[in-house]
Amino acid sequence: MATRIVVLGGGFGGMYTARALRRRFGRKAEIEVINAQNYFVFQPLLPEVAGGSITPAHAVSPLRFVLDGVFVRKAVVDSVDFERKVVTVFQGIQRRPTEVSYDHLVIALGQGTDFSRMPGLEEHALKMKTLEDARRLRGHIIEQLEHAQVTELPDTKRGALTFTVVGGGFSGVETVGEMKEMIDRSLRFYPKIDPSEVRVQLIEFAPRILNEMPEPLADYAVGHLERHGIEIKLRTGVKSATHRQLVTTDGEVIDTRTIVATIGNAPLPVVQRMGLPLDKGRIPVDRTLRVAGHDNVWALGDCALIPLKEGASERTDFAPPTAQFAVREAKRVAANIAAAVRGRDLKPFAYASRGALASLGAKRGVANVFGHNITGFPAWFIWRSYYLALLPGIGTRIRVMINWSLDMLGARSLVQLKFYGKPPLRYVYYRAGDRIYNAGDRSDGFYTVISGSVEMERPDPETGETTLRVIGPGGHFGERLILGATRRKTTVRANEDCKVLVMNREEFLMLAEGFSAFREYFRPYMDKRGVTLPGGDEDTGR
Amino acid sequence: MATRIVVLGGGFGGMYTARALRRRFGRKAEIEVINAQNYFVFQPLLPEVAGGSITPAHAVSPLRFVLDGVFVRKAVVDSVDFERKVVTVFQGIQRRPTEVSYDHLVIALGQGTDFSRMPGLEEHALKMKTLEDARRLRGHIIEQLEHAQVTELPDTKRGALTFTVVGGGFSGVETVGEMKEMIDRSLRFYPKIDPSEVRVQLIEFAPRILNEMPEPLADYAVGHLERHGIEIKLRTGVKSATHRQLVTTDGEVIDTRTIVATIGNAPLPVVQRMGLPLDKGRIPVDRTLRVAGHDNVWALGDCALIPLKEGASERTDFAPPTAQFAVREAKRVAANIAAAVRGRDLKPFAYASRGALASLGAKRGVANVFGHNITGFPAWFIWRSYYLALLPGIGTRIRVMINWSLDMLGARSLVQLKFYGKPPLRYVYYRAGDRIYNAGDRSDGFYTVISGSVEMERPDPETGETTLRVIGPGGHFGERLILGATRRKTTVRANEDCKVLVMNREEFLMLAEGFSAFREYFRPYMDKRGVTLPGGDEDTGR
Repeated sequence: MATRIVVLGGGFGGMYTARALRRRFGRKAEIEVINAQNYFVFQPLLPEVAGGSITPAHAVSPLRFVLDGVFVRKAVVDSVDFERKVVTVFQGIQRRPTEVSYDHLVIALGQGTDFSRMPGLEEHALKMKTLEDARRLRGHIIEQLEHAQVTELPDTKRGALTFTVVGGGFSGVETVGEMKEMIDRSLRFYPKIDPSEVRVQLIEFAPRILNEMPEPLADYAVGHLERHGIEIKLRTGVKSATHRQLVTTDGEVIDTRTIVATIGNAPLPVVQRMGLPLDKGRIPVDRTLRVAGHDNVWALGDCALIPLKEGASERTDFAPPTAQFAVREAKRVAANIAAAVRGRDLKPFAYASRGALASLGAKRGVANVFGHNITGFPAWFIWRSYYLALLPGIGTRIRVMINWSLDMLGARSLVQLKFYGKPPLRYVYYRAGDRIYNAGDRSDGFYTVISGSVEMERPDPETGETTLRVIGPGGHFGERLILGATRRKTTVRANEDCKVLVMNREEFLMLAEGFSAFREYFRPYMDKRGVTLPGGDEDTGR
Repeated sequence: MATRIVVLGGGFGGMYTARALRRRFGRKAEIEVINAQNYFVFQPLLPEVAGGSITPAHAVSPLRFVLDGVFVRKAVVDSVDFERKVVTVFQGIQRRPTEVSYDHLVIALGQGTDFSRMPGLEEHALKMKTLEDARRLRGHIIEQLEHAQVTELPDTKRGALTFTVVGGGFSGVETVGEMKEMIDRSLRFYPKIDPSEVRVQLIEFAPRILNEMPEPLADYAVGHLERHGIEIKLRTGVKSATHRQLVTTDGEVIDTRTIVATIGNAPLPVVQRMGLPLDKGRIPVDRTLRVAGHDNVWALGDCALIPLKEGASERTDFAPPTAQFAVREAKRVAANIAAAVRGRDLKPFAYASRGALASLGAKRGVANVFGHNITGFPAWFIWRSYYLALLPGIGTRIRVMINWSLDMLGARSLVQLKFYGKPPLRYVYYRAGDRIYNAGDRSDGFYTVISGSVEMERPDPETGETTLRVIGPGGHFGERLILGATRRKTTVRANEDCKVLVMNREEFLMLAEGFSAFREYFRPYMDKRGVTLPGGDEDTGR
């Protein structure tokens, strides 16, 4: 029976491993790639998708196009049983688990994020890890411009026109550059926005940005970005965030409705669940890319901790989490799996970086290639060409090159394609004093206080006097407005820093209509005002 | 003070009205367009977006590009106060209402849908009215192919590979043609799908499709579609739908996980709320496009009922809801508003259709132009050219023509860009006997029965015998699984046709954690099994 090799993950590492395995084994092995999406993402190009200079479809490649002869399964990995040599996945509408058996398993799932030490960041920041993130960011930026164009509230306008990127690594630097370019080019269509009202900031905790690159290039990058109007704050981190503000570790409060977080790498939950010991949040492998204690389990890419030499201990002794390394690791792991199957010796992974490239957005970059520093457009061009060369197959490269050229010809569009709305049930952070809603606002949800407290100010309908009520954890508000009046009479503000759970109005009404216990709970709150409840089998007057 | 003219809606009607007004008034009037999206959609091209032959961004044009000198407000219209001459809108995060005053108001909001007579269709069918609909459909089709590729359940595979379009008008015919083409071209990448397993159907209630076109062309269209493997069912309507089946008016039950509904036009809620009398679901206007009883309120496009002659009574005496007519109506209403402002006479709207064009998808069409019938690629080319000519401005036409050419050069991509997931709280219809979930399935939600009833089959943990329990309206199930066990022991099926409200697992847990009354309600259901509840201020053992 043919050897079954299953690859978890279809990024640079997983996709190239599958291709290399196919070339080595031909039809003598069954090779399968399991990925949550049916496409492979050119991750370094995501900021250009966010900036609108590449259309989303041109920053990805369908896995089926580049993995001929490999079985591609679009599914979510749930768990691995190393004893039975079985991977459990959920595919389709994801209720019935499917078991996929393997003789050899390659783990190339990448990394996730963990913002738990920065309250509010998970709920209110945008990320830049997936294609959806890039599209969401672009739509979000356009939304802020549209809002700033029509709003008459100065605070709202300032928050909408302040854009903050957290993290001065490759991703953060390229993202902030692309964002600035996109905003600059769009402003002529928004006559109510003065360019001087726009602030774009980059926040980095270390003393400098682009730590992976030689200092002269990092200095050039800082100068370039600053000349383009981007404010760079070094030695600054994020303390907490709300939907309209960011608080830095210096205690500065920035009014900003756009926070892009490119920091916080952490192991994915599925990797954590595997039960393998993790080091620095990654799966330790030996120099042949084998997972310790397993003959037939391998790992590579961002999720793996790969020593580059014997006795590796410093951060620089391990392979950095870049596409350049992942592609080389893939070749090595495929060769080693073939050797293992054929009873031959395995070889260690060895690769010395050929240099580093970073885009600064807007067709400018910095590059260190074979020891030489290059800046500006030539560096960006080398950067783009490098990633083109990293794409699998001549056919793909030609197609993508055509697409990129076409994108350059086309005008950068302003269209804000609708994307994910806010989840109907979500956590929101507020800082002490923040207004949660005002008298006169339209109902927008049912709120439950998770931590902290809020203060509700209401005019007494009989006396006309204002009463104050403090609502703490477990308390709730907003239901009266949904079930009755059309405009609020109350003003609610955060008494202290707090976290609330908000369910939007449509959901609340659906649940009240369908779930009688939920509806009945609110009856006492309604009767006082003569308000009627929706749905229900009893006669409620509606 | 300059005259303020506000146009509600940025489709063909609204957008061209604003352009014509700008040309007539120059700076002497303030012209404002209010639209929910910041772009204008080439609606007839939506099926080609669904089929992937045009990228979404190439089927729209940013309103700011084509409405120079016009104030564009991205906002949702809430209501109109005709006395005070004020439109109330919600912009930005949409909680504070904004009032926009006008001297003249033009209503060009288009139409909505109403599927209320066909249970399940609203919840389970896809539409083709907006750009998001087209993108969602495309992603949905690819998802079905991906699922069919990996599933081992024959029923699931059949449902995934059966695609049903309801409505044989322009939109339905073009959509079904594009879908078939896209599926056909994709199949070579899905080795586990045999082309004979794919069924694509078009369902039309009338005796023939394309009722607006001469019968010979409709016959050609039928022949063309059938030669391409599309099954056409005439004199057939929809009775009801679930997420995996469609029941026709003939009582036939079709296993299909893709239902595209292009029928069911109805007035939008915002139009209904305006309090204007509606006729045939549209706002009646006189021949000068003025709304009856108002000097300064006008309507055009799909939302208006425009008589083409005196004593109009038959359906054909009124302007059809097409782009061709909307563009001409826009010119007339702008001229009449200018006349009204300057105290001159108004002129009636008069236009005779120049012919009809329909795309059959896949670069084939039928056309009746100046009395001549044309078919095949030439007809499709004329159709495309006509819509190119309808675009506003030379610059836009050139840009779009380049984009369309580029789309034709690029390979039709298979990438399934992630789109809207299922709403976390949604209604689902089941037919008697349908299985809702099986023992062994992973928990996927908390269910409340709205109407009908379900039957739960569970093995008694002590005796091992199977018990049956019927749950009717108001009853609920699924909570135990979310709060405790990881796999179901129960099987639940629909006892009779029923409608349930499903809240997904993540939402349920968030709400249970945050809202103590909700959590406490489920405590008695949990204690019996020694299951603990999340969150809460009391010690629940977690």
